[in-house]
Amino acid sequence: MHPQTNRQFVLAARPNGMPTADTFKLIETPIPELKDGEVLVRAVYLSVDPYMRGRISGMRSYAAPVEVGQVMVGGGVAKVVESKNPDFKPGDFVDIYMGWQEYSISNGKNIRKLDPSIPVSTAEGVLGMTGLTAYFGLLDVCDPKPGETVVVSGAAGAVGSVVGQIAKIKGCHTVGIAGGDDKVAWILEECGYDAAFNYKTTNDYSGRLKELCPQGIDVYFDNVGGPITDAIFGLLNVGARISICGQISQYNNTRLEMGPRLLGALIVARAKVQGFLVSDYASRFGPALMELAGWVRAGKIKYREDIVEGFENLPSAFIGLFSGANTGKRLVHVS
Amino acid sequence: MHPQTNRQFVLAARPNGMPTADTFKLIETPIPELKDGEVLVRAVYLSVDPYMRGRISGMRSYAAPVEVGQVMVGGGVAKVVESKNPDFKPGDFVDIYMGWQEYSISNGKNIRKLDPSIPVSTAEGVLGMTGLTAYFGLLDVCDPKPGETVVVSGAAGAVGSVVGQIAKIKGCHTVGIAGGDDKVAWILEECGYDAAFNYKTTNDYSGRLKELCPQGIDVYFDNVGGPITDAIFGLLNVGARISICGQISQYNNTRLEMGPRLLGALIVARAKVQGFLVSDYASRFGPALMELAGWVRAGKIKYREDIVEGFENLPSAFIGLFSGANTGKRLVHVS
Repeated sequence: MHPQTNRQFVLAARPNGMPTADTFKLIETPIPELKDGEVLVRAVYLSVDPYMRGRISGMRSYAAPVEVGQVMVGGGVAKVVESKNPDFKPGDFVDIYMGWQEYSISNGKNIRKLDPSIPVSTAEGVLGMTGLTAYFGLLDVCDPKPGETVVVSGAAGAVGSVVGQIAKIKGCHTVGIAGGDDKVAWILEECGYDAAFNYKTTNDYSGRLKELCPQGIDVYFDNVGGPITDAIFGLLNVGARISICGQISQYNNTRLEMGPRLLGALIVARAKVQGFLVSDYASRFGPALMELAGWVRAGKIKYREDIVEGFENLPSAFIGLFSGANTGKRLVHVS
Repeated sequence: MHPQTNRQFVLAARPNGMPTADTFKLIETPIPELKDGEVLVRAVYLSVDPYMRGRISGMRSYAAPVEVGQVMVGGGVAKVVESKNPDFKPGDFVDIYMGWQEYSISNGKNIRKLDPSIPVSTAEGVLGMTGLTAYFGLLDVCDPKPGETVVVSGAAGAVGSVVGQIAKIKGCHTVGIAGGDDKVAWILEECGYDAAFNYKTTNDYSGRLKELCPQGIDVYFDNVGGPITDAIFGLLNVGARISICGQISQYNNTRLEMGPRLLGALIVARAKVQGFLVSDYASRFGPALMELAGWVRAGKIKYREDIVEGFENLPSAFIGLFSGANTGKRLVHVS
């Protein structure tokens, strides 16, 4: 049975500051018949991620922005419902950058069939973009050495929770910063962070970091930016490396926030700060996913999924990321 | 004749903000007789450099600060006046980190004999620490490629003027930022910068940089920090590299200056910002000096020395660095 109607969230208006319910609009569109070589898939899990805030702003960025009226972009796990492509059959699970819609038609080139013996939701998390982001942002950008101190902000998030565990596998002293006592408990007890604190109940970030990092800071994996990152700059060891993965504290600002000028600290520490995008590592995704899957299977990497039910809740699930509503990888379960 | 009296500038008080005449005090001390193995040298040129501001602050830095009452540190070119060391004889010129004093006694280990066929003053500039700083900060930290655009702040300074010329040797498009029309003229006409502007008569740094860097910015060599560096962050090409050599605009602040939070730009550009100290490259100074000397001899690197006459003018020569009084390498001619 070919389904007749697709539901899609399109960008209704560029947000000014924090996105709202009016930022997106739900529309219905017909689903065309398949041509030869095409595959029709139905969303099972759709991903919501902080980086999406950048895609709906009009600012200069690494990818063309989503235009008003266009379907919101994003990754997802989907199930093949119809296929005119010999490589895919109904019932197959695939990883696809399909955006915020229930159905999508692919030519079969930009989808990846998933191993059904592994929970398919992991393809959007620990064994997908967020796991890979943790992997390359830590290992490639920062090259942590055994015994070094690695600090992670957003440490209970989809990326940060994995960063700490990879750093632990590499023999590092791991310190997480998260926004909630429940999050701190989770990263300490489940993710094996050596130390952690709740920044929402801490006034003196620098003092707390000094206590938890008695040997100073060698590596900092930054998901948040702002005053937490400022505190790190004063505690860097010689040769420190900072990976700039995200700056979620800044994404909804309507003008650039001001903060202390700290580049001079990089001279004192001969430190490196580097921004990165996981997509630049696409040629190395295969072996990295193998290694991540091995760690997950061996119980060395634990993960948590924060599942929101219902396609219609995509906007609110996304907006909640910016108040830290999620622990671990947030997904919207669609069907 | 063994001289009897040394004159020394000691730190009189830590400056609060800009150093003043009261920051240093001139004292006289006796000169001991030489022991076996020792060499007595007399300063010919003493160097004044922006980094010295950090050494007289009490702030955490890469070296222990100069304490009140101690002789001010710094490099110099000196002439041997007495020697009980077979490796040195009266009349030899040496490079020595002797500090702000007329005479110094060395055990012969931390001094380097200079080739008298090359102007000895260059040992404190283009063929000394400032030339080496330009060399490693550009080539090692930024690895510029032919055709790339290299922007330099403090471009008419001792370091910046050499950076642009090395970048030109490497086939780059070079753009300098300096504080004066005379400085701009010098770096364009003598140092071979492809383009330059006077930041003191420019309001819109970003607009001017866009004009002069039509292909964007691949490499930025930062001597100054502050709003000039802010403007660079918005114009970085993918894969850009920033070398943080100095932040002279910030050195005399009594509290951290505030500026826009710009780390997010590093993600967009997948850019790297790295602080460095030339002293970390000590094991590679030899071959680097050979290469620099070759470029100077071949006329590929021009240099200018800004000579202030008189030992007693060391403090004012140093303080003038922070208002950009110098063009090229500033030295104090002592004897």
